Amino acid sequence: MASSSEGSGDALLPDFPRGPLHAYRARASFSWKELALFLEGEDMLRFKKTIFSTLENDPLFAPPRGGDLSMEKYRELNFLRCRRVFEYDFLPVEDMLRSPLKVLVLINCLGAYDWSLVSKFILHMLIFGSTIYHSGSERHFKYMPKIFGMEIFGCFALTELSHGTNTKAIRTTAHYDPATEEFIIHSPDFEAAKFWVGNMGKTATHAVVFAQLHTPGGGCHGLHSFIVQIRDPKTLLPVPGVMVGDIGRKLGQNGLDNGFAMFHKVRIPRQDLLNRIGDVTPEGTYVTPFKDDRQRFAASLGSLSTGRVSIMSMSVVNLKLAISIALRFSATRRQFGPTDEEEIPVLEYQVQQWRLLPYLAAAYALDHFSTWLFLDLVELQQGLLAKDPSARQAELGREIHALASAGKPLASWTAQQGIQECREACGGHGYLAMNRLGDLRNDNDPNCTYEGDNNVLLQQTSSYLLSLLARRAQGGARCESPLKSVDFLEAYPDILGRRFEVPSLEDYLDSSVPLAAYEWLVCYLLQESDRKLNQEKRSGSSDFEARNNCQVYYCRSLALAFLELTVLRRFHEYTHQPRVPPPLRAVLGRLSALYGLWSLSRHTALLYRGGYFSSEQAGKMMENAILDLCSQLYKNLWTAVLQESKVLERASWWPEFSANKPVIGSWKSKL
Amino acid sequence: MASSSEGSGDALLPDFPRGPLHAYRARASFSWKELALFLEGEDMLRFKKTIFSTLENDPLFAPPRGGDLSMEKYRELNFLRCRRVFEYDFLPVEDMLRSPLKVLVLINCLGAYDWSLVSKFILHMLIFGSTIYHSGSERHFKYMPKIFGMEIFGCFALTELSHGTNTKAIRTTAHYDPATEEFIIHSPDFEAAKFWVGNMGKTATHAVVFAQLHTPGGGCHGLHSFIVQIRDPKTLLPVPGVMVGDIGRKLGQNGLDNGFAMFHKVRIPRQDLLNRIGDVTPEGTYVTPFKDDRQRFAASLGSLSTGRVSIMSMSVVNLKLAISIALRFSATRRQFGPTDEEEIPVLEYQVQQWRLLPYLAAAYALDHFSTWLFLDLVELQQGLLAKDPSARQAELGREIHALASAGKPLASWTAQQGIQECREACGGHGYLAMNRLGDLRNDNDPNCTYEGDNNVLLQQTSSYLLSLLARRAQGGARCESPLKSVDFLEAYPDILGRRFEVPSLEDYLDSSVPLAAYEWLVCYLLQESDRKLNQEKRSGSSDFEARNNCQVYYCRSLALAFLELTVLRRFHEYTHQPRVPPPLRAVLGRLSALYGLWSLSRHTALLYRGGYFSSEQAGKMMENAILDLCSQLYKNLWTAVLQESKVLERASWWPEFSANKPVIGSWKSKL
Repeated sequence: MASSSEGSGDALLPDFPRGPLHAYRARASFSWKELALFLEGEDMLRFKKTIFSTLENDPLFAPPRGGDLSMEKYRELNFLRCRRVFEYDFLPVEDMLRSPLKVLVLINCLGAYDWSLVSKFILHMLIFGSTIYHSGSERHFKYMPKIFGMEIFGCFALTELSHGTNTKAIRTTAHYDPATEEFIIHSPDFEAAKFWVGNMGKTATHAVVFAQLHTPGGGCHGLHSFIVQIRDPKTLLPVPGVMVGDIGRKLGQNGLDNGFAMFHKVRIPRQDLLNRIGDVTPEGTYVTPFKDDRQRFAASLGSLSTGRVSIMSMSVVNLKLAISIALRFSATRRQFGPTDEEEIPVLEYQVQQWRLLPYLAAAYALDHFSTWLFLDLVELQQGLLAKDPSARQAELGREIHALASAGKPLASWTAQQGIQECREACGGHGYLAMNRLGDLRNDNDPNCTYEGDNNVLLQQTSSYLLSLLARRAQGGARCESPLKSVDFLEAYPDILGRRFEVPSLEDYLDSSVPLAAYEWLVCYLLQESDRKLNQEKRSGSSDFEARNNCQVYYCRSLALAFLELTVLRRFHEYTHQPRVPPPLRAVLGRLSALYGLWSLSRHTALLYRGGYFSSEQAGKMMENAILDLCSQLYKNLWTAVLQESKVLERASWWPEFSANKPVIGSWKSKL
Repeated sequence: MASSSEGSGDALLPDFPRGPLHAYRARASFSWKELALFLEGEDMLRFKKTIFSTLENDPLFAPPRGGDLSMEKYRELNFLRCRRVFEYDFLPVEDMLRSPLKVLVLINCLGAYDWSLVSKFILHMLIFGSTIYHSGSERHFKYMPKIFGMEIFGCFALTELSHGTNTKAIRTTAHYDPATEEFIIHSPDFEAAKFWVGNMGKTATHAVVFAQLHTPGGGCHGLHSFIVQIRDPKTLLPVPGVMVGDIGRKLGQNGLDNGFAMFHKVRIPRQDLLNRIGDVTPEGTYVTPFKDDRQRFAASLGSLSTGRVSIMSMSVVNLKLAISIALRFSATRRQFGPTDEEEIPVLEYQVQQWRLLPYLAAAYALDHFSTWLFLDLVELQQGLLAKDPSARQAELGREIHALASAGKPLASWTAQQGIQECREACGGHGYLAMNRLGDLRNDNDPNCTYEGDNNVLLQQTSSYLLSLLARRAQGGARCESPLKSVDFLEAYPDILGRRFEVPSLEDYLDSSVPLAAYEWLVCYLLQESDRKLNQEKRSGSSDFEARNNCQVYYCRSLALAFLELTVLRRFHEYTHQPRVPPPLRAVLGRLSALYGLWSLSRHTALLYRGGYFSSEQAGKMMENAILDLCSQLYKNLWTAVLQESKVLERASWWPEFSANKPVIGSWKSKL
């Protein structure tokens, strides 16, 4: 079986060039090609290969990616690359419709090359372009060919200097003037300046601007979006009334020009209001298909899950890249040994395995989860477009919102911590910029704060769970959801009564053990959070205070534990299904168990405190199981670190790279 | 009392300029000036003020510090600043001898400005210069005036491309040739190239080079250090036989030029061997005052503690800077609120307090510890210089080595995690380079890996503790040490039998509670590590394997817990001593309790597992106490975030800074 799949995949998955890693690769207990085919499928591997090969063969994409250039030069190069991506047209619309997952794969492949590039591309095409398409109406379709042809270049201007996460408090205004049938876009002061807007710094000619809509005599109708020209596409100079500039150097992604803008009574035609959630008649009357403000506000920000699911996936790419670099380095770097004469690769040390392999397992588990959640999201969006009025559609929206709101924190933090561990695990060489771990960390970093601060987002997920519990308590409604992530809560009181029974060490090496423990943990945290919330309210706190005072140790932990449970459950089911090829079952099962136990081990205190664990043995066995799994995976897995291999090959050879680089100073003749 | 100290300190500690932080400052329950005077003393505050004022008034030190410049320009500027620091001569030798702590304060003040600057300065003066002074003899004193006058510029070349932490495996050779009375310095291949050497990239003219010393017929005598010229001081071109270059961009500290060098049979005079640990006669006979190789090797690397203690202190400076930036931002940034109309500063949220205030407490506790350990180290070095043969001197050396080897990991990791939390707690604005959190993170990062990888260093500390236990078991020797950090182990079996008794919540707010818990924890981990090690050995592992397989969950945790205990004990004693001014007792006591409980809370699982905690209540009360302390400190402490205030003032005003910066693009007339 292994040999047949190797045969069929040879063109698609050629053997690695021989090098210092060969000895390890030869020891693998399974075929990495078979694993790649199983995890991704031939079609997707082929699509990835096309993208990577294209970039590899185009000198425009040759290093330096950007780090060694001046910011000005890097941005110029990034813009040229972005334009080239348009020209390659990797994913024509019909392919996208046939396989929506390819959108995600394209983003991830370009991102594995450089996130500045993909951000620039997406902000124009997917964020600016699709907001106009989805939030506008036929009168805005005229913009689409200009967007596809890059005649205009767009950005998405929501955040202001003083308001990010709290979007309702946005202070830019849009007053309607019936005399000229225009809106007047205005920034009342510098704190209301649009700020952080990607592409706005240097290149955008148009912006989707969010502003509070006012009509004469009608007052304020809340946040709406408008198409506002900010620069002349011919000269890139700002248009009258717009002060636009660049916010300067960031910790990473410096190929992207983030900007700010202030509007001084800028007039735009009435038609440039994106009117899906509300419109203004020529005379100045506000009309909307929505019943109330809340509903309209929710609809105006309805696409939040897309951003969050994408960020999950982007974080996973960063983690994969970092862990590949660190594992390859650890397999070739020798330091100390049993005797003074013999040094062994640092990956042979238990500490090094324990530092890195759990992040490898996390990369697989989170990769699987984010892909599935993306496909669920596609289903949700198809329902939205078809205006599906069913209860299931509404429930699916709530469930995906809850999963994405905690999934983004979990994935971005795991990547942040994992990349840092990789950087340290490579010692001094991890601190050299050419080895890319710094760029990965710096480019991944905003994933923790944009599209909603992680800690704030987690509240969405815990609120969802608490509301289910309340509904169950009040009316005895069943706990179930379209993706089944909360169905286990149906057994809530039973689960709370469960106690850990010490399994054999062998049983401990299967993810069903942490899965059961996680179910108990989530129920326990749900119970505790609910109690705490009621206690706060009884003691006289307002709803606002009560909610704030239940986050630390309660709701925040609840949301994270619930997401870890869900990620683990999906990966457990995926790795235990009958269609997994037999030669891959052992390795996939171990990855699932390691992810589960390692994640769970951060909650051991609660397992003891709440009585799920009682013996000293329970905790010790968990630690032993983690170390056992690390050692087993180390022995047979890590050759499977193959994803993104093309863009990485360079990094695993850094000693030669460092030694052969052109040097300042020269080897002078002794004569 | 408060007013009198304010009066006396006015010139030294002027009031802050009025600004958005004033309202909070006015609510403080104590005088920040009194706290500053108590913590640092007038003499040290005056010294700091001199340094900061001097830099502020010299245009050479005006921003940009470096981040926005090309690497070439940044290095040039950094070199000019380094030269200017020589010219200012902040700390003449006689002042240094009178108050050795000022060396540390000088390093920290310059580092708070820019670590690239201080690294360049120290590497030449303290590392290169004092190695020659301490490892050489009278024949090398001729170099000292050239070093002080910057006629030559130095670097310290120990690490090689393939060997960092394992210094014994260094492969550069020095063969003695009696015919010409010269050593021949040689790099056998590129993996033996000196690598990462600070100042070597562009500026050093001379290096202290570590190499294996060989004599004709005498074989190899191990690692020794040599003064080797690498560049011509007049032209900065490399001398014959030396290939020297720059290793390129790093994640941070790019004002410093780290370099590499390969030596092709470079001949140097016999006298340039630094001969304190061993010398070669003109005829080629090796002579040494040491009995065996081990003793000589230990002596050749005896100054390791200095580097580690300095890194602790550097890490604390970074943490202080980051936490000051983040707290000030959090006090002025408003987001959400009890009603749609009213927004509150994000620092009012429990989550934000819990994210930041424990790091503030950690900064105080670690600052105190690193200062004291530095003073202990000075005592040790004075003993070494006086050749004190006492047992106490030897014990002091071992104890400081153990404390510094775990103190460096604890401080560097706490800073790394704290800065990351600060960066995220500032949301998007934390990602803007001008707000400095990125530079702090990037410049702090090498603290985790250089002067010994953190995970490897921790083994030194656990080995020390295990050896004490073994000595106690064998001969019944008392457990005691000059700094008393291990004296509690005298009660080892008693402590293991202790159980947590739930105190009142009020008692929980004092650091004696976590202190007692830590004593139990360290004893528990010591017992478990000892058992594990014996079990590994009994099951047939070699010493090398057994030690490696006892790190994760055992020795590694033991070393960290022991250091946390020691830091906490010192800060507890310091904050509870009678000479603490009464108005400061409450706030200092809370800082100590918060640091202790927060650190301890990461070990809760072990407290339960080992039976120290048994009730659900114990763990819950710990969490409540942490949140209570955060809230109390928030209410009355944070005005005390004053250290390094001069170099920081700019950062707390970033909205105005961002809005007033010169912008590309302009506000065109509508006419």
